[in-house]
Amino acid sequence: MVQMGLVGLGKMGFNMRERLRAAGHEVVGYDRNAEVSDTTSLEDLVSKLAAPRIVWVMVPAGEPTRETVVAFSNLLGEGDILIDGGNSKFTDDKINAELLAAKGVGYLDVGVSGGVWGKENGYGLMVGGSAADVERAMPIFDALRPEGPREEGFSHAGSVGAGHYAKMVHNGIEYGLMQAFAEGFELLEASKAVDDVPAVIKGWQRGTVVRSWLLDLLVRALDEDPELDDLEGYVEDSGEGRWTLEEAINNAVPAPVISAALFARFASRQEHSAAMRAVAALRQQFGGHAVKKAGG
Amino acid sequence: MVQMGLVGLGKMGFNMRERLRAAGHEVVGYDRNAEVSDTTSLEDLVSKLAAPRIVWVMVPAGEPTRETVVAFSNLLGEGDILIDGGNSKFTDDKINAELLAAKGVGYLDVGVSGGVWGKENGYGLMVGGSAADVERAMPIFDALRPEGPREEGFSHAGSVGAGHYAKMVHNGIEYGLMQAFAEGFELLEASKAVDDVPAVIKGWQRGTVVRSWLLDLLVRALDEDPELDDLEGYVEDSGEGRWTLEEAINNAVPAPVISAALFARFASRQEHSAAMRAVAALRQQFGGHAVKKAGG
Amino acid sequence: MVQMGLVGLGKMGFNMRERLRAAGHEVVGYDRNAEVSDTTSLEDLVSKLAAPRIVWVMVPAGEPTRETVVAFSNLLGEGDILIDGGNSKFTDDKINAELLAAKGVGYLDVGVSGGVWGKENGYGLMVGGSAADVERAMPIFDALRPEGPREEGFSHAGSVGAGHYAKMVHNGIEYGLMQAFAEGFELLEASKAVDDVPAVIKGWQRGTVVRSWLLDLLVRALDEDPELDDLEGYVEDSGEGRWTLEEAINNAVPAPVISAALFARFASRQEHSAAMRAVAALRQQFGGHAVKKAGG
Amino acid sequence: MVQMGLVGLGKMGFNMRERLRAAGHEVVGYDRNAEVSDTTSLEDLVSKLAAPRIVWVMVPAGEPTRETVVAFSNLLGEGDILIDGGNSKFTDDKINAELLAAKGVGYLDVGVSGGVWGKENGYGLMVGGSAADVERAMPIFDALRPEGPREEGFSHAGSVGAGHYAKMVHNGIEYGLMQAFAEGFELLEASKAVDDVPAVIKGWQRGTVVRSWLLDLLVRALDEDPELDDLEGYVEDSGEGRWTLEEAINNAVPAPVISAALFARFASRQEHSAAMRAVAALRQQFGGHAVKKAGG
Repeated sequence: MVQMGLVGLGKMGFNMRERLRAAGHEVVGYDRNAEVSDTTSLEDLVSKLAAPRIVWVMVPAGEPTRETVVAFSNLLGEGDILIDGGNSKFTDDKINAELLAAKGVGYLDVGVSGGVWGKENGYGLMVGGSAADVERAMPIFDALRPEGPREEGFSHAGSVGAGHYAKMVHNGIEYGLMQAFAEGFELLEASKAVDDVPAVIKGWQRGTVVRSWLLDLLVRALDEDPELDDLEGYVEDSGEGRWTLEEAINNAVPAPVISAALFARFASRQEHSAAMRAVAALRQQFGGHAVKKAGG
Repeated sequence: MVQMGLVGLGKMGFNMRERLRAAGHEVVGYDRNAEVSDTTSLEDLVSKLAAPRIVWVMVPAGEPTRETVVAFSNLLGEGDILIDGGNSKFTDDKINAELLAAKGVGYLDVGVSGGVWGKENGYGLMVGGSAADVERAMPIFDALRPEGPREEGFSHAGSVGAGHYAKMVHNGIEYGLMQAFAEGFELLEASKAVDDVPAVIKGWQRGTVVRSWLLDLLVRALDEDPELDDLEGYVEDSGEGRWTLEEAINNAVPAPVISAALFARFASRQEHSAAMRAVAALRQQFGGHAVKKAGG
Repeated sequence: MVQMGLVGLGKMGFNMRERLRAAGHEVVGYDRNAEVSDTTSLEDLVSKLAAPRIVWVMVPAGEPTRETVVAFSNLLGEGDILIDGGNSKFTDDKINAELLAAKGVGYLDVGVSGGVWGKENGYGLMVGGSAADVERAMPIFDALRPEGPREEGFSHAGSVGAGHYAKMVHNGIEYGLMQAFAEGFELLEASKAVDDVPAVIKGWQRGTVVRSWLLDLLVRALDEDPELDDLEGYVEDSGEGRWTLEEAINNAVPAPVISAALFARFASRQEHSAAMRAVAALRQQFGGHAVKKAGG
Repeated sequence: MVQMGLVGLGKMGFNMRERLRAAGHEVVGYDRNAEVSDTTSLEDLVSKLAAPRIVWVMVPAGEPTRETVVAFSNLLGEGDILIDGGNSKFTDDKINAELLAAKGVGYLDVGVSGGVWGKENGYGLMVGGSAADVERAMPIFDALRPEGPREEGFSHAGSVGAGHYAKMVHNGIEYGLMQAFAEGFELLEASKAVDDVPAVIKGWQRGTVVRSWLLDLLVRALDEDPELDDLEGYVEDSGEGRWTLEEAINNAVPAPVISAALFARFASRQEHSAAMRAVAALRQQFGGHAVKKAGG
């Protein structure tokens, strides 16, 4: 059993604390929200951990994570390990690792997949960092990852940054998978070629080539709302899809499916995009085609 | 100078009659709209033409064209020629040609490009049919096509159907060109990286690689409405784009640009598509991600 | 236990006969290959079945299936049922059903998913036809479908054609899913950002959002060939992807992911495509850019 | 008439010197290739210009341009202007401008379009920088740009970086336009639906919606090589397409056409890509589909 700090007790961190404690680990959690926090400050959290410490940071990527790492660079010391389990961009990891290395603090970047279901099912983990640091944190990883062979829900992907890189690609794939199911759903809806779209999709859960967890979730969503019309077709994107596409560009890798999935999200958030106004304007110019006037 | 019938005096046919008459040809026009029609019926039109006759049909593709061809199959005879200048699907041409051939009537299918500007600039023409029939109709083609070398605004593309096929591919390309300009326009608008988007685009009209008639039309549209916000971004499609994509599929030709342009039009006409509601639902299922509730 | 005929004992039909027999059903199989056939002719097969008969046809889509249906229309009679379990286009089903209905023979179209694994795992089934015919064939479906709740591996999708339509969409989705994984794999390979690509992918099998049967199969392939370099990147397509895209066009459904996946297959079979020769030619024309001369 | 330095006398710079001199300007050219150079070094070039000087840099983007700018930051002084006319990334411009501003040297970034034809036709110019600097360099721009109204071949796009940004978007559009023509060409080739593909395309040059300079160049290429089979379908990309796509991502602008065009180039340079090997492997795994063995 290990002792550890856990910073960030939102949807993900809160559940992870539960799962870690259920596995018998001692978790000192900190969150700005005092109601869920076990401690009052990062300083206090550090003081409650015996050296060498392990602190898992689970806060939003970008500034919040960066600020937390900087804060810990002044609180942790030789032999401690900081783990960034957030959805950080892989390029942040080297910067964080170097800052901490200057204080003798080890660094691991961990891509964590599984969403709100991870508490029960375990989280898929992709880890970047040194073998020694990974080894020390393994009891934590073993508690968080799903049941079954370790190598099916955990990978030591490589050195610092490799964990978040693997998670980024995972999420890029995820964008493509979701869009593939979404296009199929829309075609079934639009064509009216089958009588009961949810029943057809539910019938794909066993035996078929498309069986998958995302399909199970789609079935679940359709059980609750058979035409999914309680929702708007407005879809955010959270970074990994963009970074995957940037990396595809950087590596000259064709990524038509992942880019299509990302652009579908961009377009879902637009109304009367400039591009389509331009196409409408061009058609009007050459063909005198009827167009819809704005506010008409 | 030739004598000819012209059926369908809408935006295209009306202008074509003007251009043909300006070239000295005798045009007997028919339209259901008596105000623009020169004659009261197809029968009457045929009676006004000396055999062997040439009749140009310029009505909407599909049923209207088909009905007109059937009607003429009972009115025209040996040695006459019927020309379908509409945006018919190339697969209709063989059917029409066979029906007419049984009566000794020749058939030409003509793809006509140029829109409302054709009256002044001339129309780009792509023709399918026999060399003999093309030869007989050449004075008409020469009147309709733009100034300059014949082969730069006219082609005898092949046998029956080839004219509409060439026009279909032309329009498929056109979809791609328009979308390319549209994406560039949107990026300039969104990035705010240049001070005056219309000025930048206007400055592309001479010397650049992208100079083109569509660019000229975009400049014209921006002159009238610098942010194109008088229009909705709602774009119809009229068949040729779909057929081009079907033919790409039939011939195993990758057509990522043409399909993307077509799908952008489909999407422009949707609000809260089933696909994007499905993606939103999936994100909510696995991540507890916030979604927009319909009507919320 | 039911008695049935099964025509076509290739990879799929052969395995299905095994699974049906293991479930206790009496299967009279016919194949042109006498070594695997239980009977010498379709006539003989019919003579071995007591009326009312059920015959399952499992031969290649298109002409072979059509010919088999026509043959049975002269062999089967009132009260018999013919099931097409092949990958037929949904538009064939109505034609087949009408031909058979004239003889009093019922018709079911069944989309069968699961490939060579179906013998052991069961097949996902999507069925089109009348409720009464489906009910009669249910013991067969129950034997073929996977263990577990019937509705998770079987659907009665609607009337004639709905089963193959559902299977078509299933396969369209499958194209998109495969391409999404493929793009992610290529990016991991190209970027060299992780140390052991197969280990990372294997680590996605549990807990992650992308866990799925296709991922399991990718892991299996990588176990055998860690860089997948025993294979050429040459990918056939077998119809359903094309039909899905056609139906997307017909229903004005944007399908950027499914089309991208299909086009990637088309492109995988090309070397020096006309399109890319055209782009190379254009670059040479305007920029004097160096190009690769064919055979150079 | 103005006096100016011009550094880089490759395909573009050499032609520009000709055009500038033909307009009566005094151009001191420098190139590492002594055969075309008017001077022996950047120092010598500067010494030959009377202050306040204007120096146009026309060397490859990236390191070569950067090094040249750094060198001039030590050679030029108060009131001089350096113009970067290369295909630099817009993000480089601010860095260059700041370095030079510290020495009192003005900076203009100019996107130059028109390729090898610019010498004769003039170059399309997009300029970023201060109004005062633009004004001073206007005689140069007027000499380089095409005949006709200035605003149709020149734009002052905005402050530093705006010129290269405008050029980047121009080139992104150009990628899309080229790919659209390329797809249409391939479909005409593959379908064999028209008798003479080059004749059809030549016939699009006048009157049609797709008439454009790129079309004219395609006609020119087809005149020389009617099936374009002297070329390999291997297409480089030179940065602007990638940057346009990155900017689309940064601004959440859907860019399906521009990305498709870029990815088609990436794919044109691959043989047996990892992605398509993965798809082949997956098909083999689930379906026992035949695959092509590498080296088979």
